[in-house]
Amino acid sequence: MLNEINTFIAESKIYTHYMEISANNPNRSSWIETPTNSDFPIQNIPFGVFMRSDESVSIGSRIGDLAIDLSALQQLGYFNEIELPEGVFLEDTLNEFMDLGIETNRAVRNRIAEIFDMNNSELQNNDEHKKAVLVPVSEIEMLLPAEIGDYTDFYSSKEHATNVGTMFRDPNNALLPNWLHIPVGYHGRSSSIVVSGTEVHRPCGQTIPADSDSPVYGPSRLVDFEMEMAFLTRSGKPMGQRITTDEAEDYIFGMILFNDWSARDIQKWEYVPLGPFLAKNFASSISAWVVTMDALEPYRTEGPQQDPKPLPYLNFTGAKSYDINLEVAILPEAADETTVCKTNFKYMYWNMAQQLAHHTVNGCNIRSGDMLASGTISGPTPDSYGSMLEITWRGSKPVIMSNGSERKFINDQDTVIMRGFCENNGVRIGFGEVSGKLLPALD
Amino acid sequence: MLNEINTFIAESKIYTHYMEISANNPNRSSWIETPTNSDFPIQNIPFGVFMRSDESVSIGSRIGDLAIDLSALQQLGYFNEIELPEGVFLEDTLNEFMDLGIETNRAVRNRIAEIFDMNNSELQNNDEHKKAVLVPVSEIEMLLPAEIGDYTDFYSSKEHATNVGTMFRDPNNALLPNWLHIPVGYHGRSSSIVVSGTEVHRPCGQTIPADSDSPVYGPSRLVDFEMEMAFLTRSGKPMGQRITTDEAEDYIFGMILFNDWSARDIQKWEYVPLGPFLAKNFASSISAWVVTMDALEPYRTEGPQQDPKPLPYLNFTGAKSYDINLEVAILPEAADETTVCKTNFKYMYWNMAQQLAHHTVNGCNIRSGDMLASGTISGPTPDSYGSMLEITWRGSKPVIMSNGSERKFINDQDTVIMRGFCENNGVRIGFGEVSGKLLPALD
Repeated sequence: MLNEINTFIAESKIYTHYMEISANNPNRSSWIETPTNSDFPIQNIPFGVFMRSDESVSIGSRIGDLAIDLSALQQLGYFNEIELPEGVFLEDTLNEFMDLGIETNRAVRNRIAEIFDMNNSELQNNDEHKKAVLVPVSEIEMLLPAEIGDYTDFYSSKEHATNVGTMFRDPNNALLPNWLHIPVGYHGRSSSIVVSGTEVHRPCGQTIPADSDSPVYGPSRLVDFEMEMAFLTRSGKPMGQRITTDEAEDYIFGMILFNDWSARDIQKWEYVPLGPFLAKNFASSISAWVVTMDALEPYRTEGPQQDPKPLPYLNFTGAKSYDINLEVAILPEAADETTVCKTNFKYMYWNMAQQLAHHTVNGCNIRSGDMLASGTISGPTPDSYGSMLEITWRGSKPVIMSNGSERKFINDQDTVIMRGFCENNGVRIGFGEVSGKLLPALD
Repeated sequence: MLNEINTFIAESKIYTHYMEISANNPNRSSWIETPTNSDFPIQNIPFGVFMRSDESVSIGSRIGDLAIDLSALQQLGYFNEIELPEGVFLEDTLNEFMDLGIETNRAVRNRIAEIFDMNNSELQNNDEHKKAVLVPVSEIEMLLPAEIGDYTDFYSSKEHATNVGTMFRDPNNALLPNWLHIPVGYHGRSSSIVVSGTEVHRPCGQTIPADSDSPVYGPSRLVDFEMEMAFLTRSGKPMGQRITTDEAEDYIFGMILFNDWSARDIQKWEYVPLGPFLAKNFASSISAWVVTMDALEPYRTEGPQQDPKPLPYLNFTGAKSYDINLEVAILPEAADETTVCKTNFKYMYWNMAQQLAHHTVNGCNIRSGDMLASGTISGPTPDSYGSMLEITWRGSKPVIMSNGSERKFINDQDTVIMRGFCENNGVRIGFGEVSGKLLPALD
């Protein structure tokens, strides 16, 4: 009974919270045309950093196929009612903006929705201002949205951990003893995080031939994607203090799609005992538009039941998962793309609040722009597995491309494209895509 | 015979190189008094970042017990012969300075040695200038020397890896199969790297009681130090390209002492399969003065014989190790310190050039200010082991402090102090110290 009351209170809170955020109003439409199935209706209002053809950089948002120059909006006085540092939208990363805090970030997003509302004429009828503020997305280049100080990768999909454990260790004890108690994670490499569209070279490294004690050197033969999502943080508490699951959401700015490129043969040889290193750090690709947690509010959902019950510092109340449809396609050269995975963020066993609470429970400090990734998001069925390792079950079940060619892993010149979107009440909010083409190894 | 010729050529190169760097002249003395056994004679000329009592920050060097304000020297025209960006010494990190490259960094160091040479009167006889440039180290606060984008920790001491493998895995197969082929490493946390003198809180987290399947939560009971050294990099090549062992030294600016605080009980439960995480990322302490590779040039030495021979990309020529004496002391409250470890950097199996070549062989890019650490530096004998885990052999052989108390690991209120220095030809070049006091867990 107590549980039911708690659930009721939590759900009421969600509803109230969601309605409080005016930008989320599902009945609102914009005077900017939004193509059918666009990821960017007026209910989204993501944030990103873009460069115009004259190489000027500013922070922007997007509705339909138009980017919105927020520095121009600020200079023209459209944000005068919000207390904002001068030039905050002229930065080349979102770090300073994110650190203004959830209330200011929300006020800016709500104000943008107001400015572009069908019934608001202040900018709509001002051609000179519109010329300064709006630019077709085809005419801009998206940059990395944040300066990512530290990047952490979790391993929070039970299905993924089970699949990997089954393949590489023991099918009868696929999950390691700590997995159901700890949101297992490790530190990744920040320097090689690149924005969608950046080409990536096949990595070289050491691998161990079957039935040999001696490694060989050469290009990886098993380059894979990992379908992940990640969140960007605001600055946390001072070193030594922890962030609780209740507090966690104040520190989470928004989410992006994430392809954690992986070289399986390098990984197999190097990863014991300190974890993956060169198998992962040659490149990690993220989508360019950061979708705020406010925009995702209507898509909250319950995550999987957690059994055994985690230790108290990992307990939480309310629906802390999100219903986000995810898919991965492979686009070979001179062929149409083939979808190889359809999964959902809601399959994650450990939620973001738990991940952040765990990450800081030892006093580890987080900074604005840190990136915490989910780990590969695999669902319960083979068509929902989030990596080629699992989809082809180590290459034993190749996938057929639209041109008839087979894929066990990723070939040179293949482009891997990941997409994600939420949908309910007739509103679709999406992340655009993260794409990356695999080029041959250098040397 | 070919080997002997190569060794002769390599040694000649070292000698020539060493003599080319005028700041290294062992016969030089300074008009600044250098106390006996100081780590900072005129042959050192390290770089660091300091704050004066008026909170102004600048980049500095040090001779004896005086800090040298390099921004003041630049403003007063002492660097006019060197092409330097305006304000480069007014930065609050060394990143931009390091990225000027090895030739410019060397020219600045040589010029500082010239300015402070006993026989040079240009600054020596100018009281007004001296007042602007020199400040007692007791009157400044040292800051973190660099903005550390990515921090990597290696595991390059064979003795340490053998000790850990013996204790936790199989004494007959203490080294894992990859260890003699790969400079094993993993990514660490940048946000919690702190400068010497910063107090650190005992971390909380999950640990697994003996003979139990269920973890418990609480303060770590097994907080340890790890005696390491680390190097800071200059910006490397674009993503996708590798740095060879021959090229590596151009990208290494200098070295620091490093205490990689570790919570052994948290580590034991969490580290499979992705490596250490919360056991390490609560704090990592570094010394404040970065000693350049130029200053360390006279202390080059051969490292251990590598058998089996590594893959060709890890081959190198010349003496790539350094003879650096290291020691660790524990200072309990209200007692004298007790030295618990004396070791040497030269014991490292894998050298820094190999670490950097390995790190980038897959195309992973490095940036100015990245930190690559050695891993725990253990020597061949128990008194040279670089962690309490090894020194007390998991707590089975406690160490006695000067006040008669026992230590298996680190107690609350203990200060851990690490020191390091090189010495030959009557010149001692040191790193000062990295110290950190362990405070009780918060909460």
